[in-house]
Amino acid sequence: MILSHGTLTAPVAHADAIRQLLRQIAQATRQEAGCQLYLVSEDLELPGHFIITEQWASLADMEAHLAQPAVGEAVAAVHGMGVTDLSIIAWEVGTQTDVI
Amino acid sequence: MILSHGTLTAPVAHADAIRQLLRQIAQATRQEAGCQLYLVSEDLELPGHFIITEQWASLADMEAHLAQPAVGEAVAAVHGMGVTDLSIIAWEVGTQTDVI
Repeated sequence: MILSHGTLTAPVAHADAIRQLLRQIAQATRQEAGCQLYLVSEDLELPGHFIITEQWASLADMEAHLAQPAVGEAVAAVHGMGVTDLSIIAWEVGTQTDVI
Repeated sequence: MILSHGTLTAPVAHADAIRQLLRQIAQATRQEAGCQLYLVSEDLELPGHFIITEQWASLADMEAHLAQPAVGEAVAAVHGMGVTDLSIIAWEVGTQTDVI
């Protein structure tokens, strides 16, 4: 299984547009093969700083997602709105512990 | 390295109190040994649904955090405010891929 952690900071003028874009991406991505979790959220300490939390069945599933034209368009859209710090990191995971 | 994904849903009457509590926990936890990331965020699609994103150097560091009295008090506090779905899952991680 793959866990992925993404972050981006929206310029104030575009924060609402990016909130809406992230919601649209989440709804579409959850329909894709191998997508086990796709949450978009906003940092409680830093408004305008967004977090994308993903879980995929395999890296191949995530790569198939990233290869879709809509994903490239979304990345171009956030860059076009002045986002300069978009980062997405994925990890293969091992032993799971249910803490609480 | 450990990745952890936590979620909880706040009753509407307590949502602001839980936002503030999560901010306080984040600020305190970042000072602890082995804490590499501690973000608290709110779901853009489900207001009142919160996400806790953690990275720890080791499971032992995370367990030392969880053993602190302040953590038990915070868990009791959210239960006292009517949260019934608090969940925290941790994973040992393997190969990392910088996707974007």
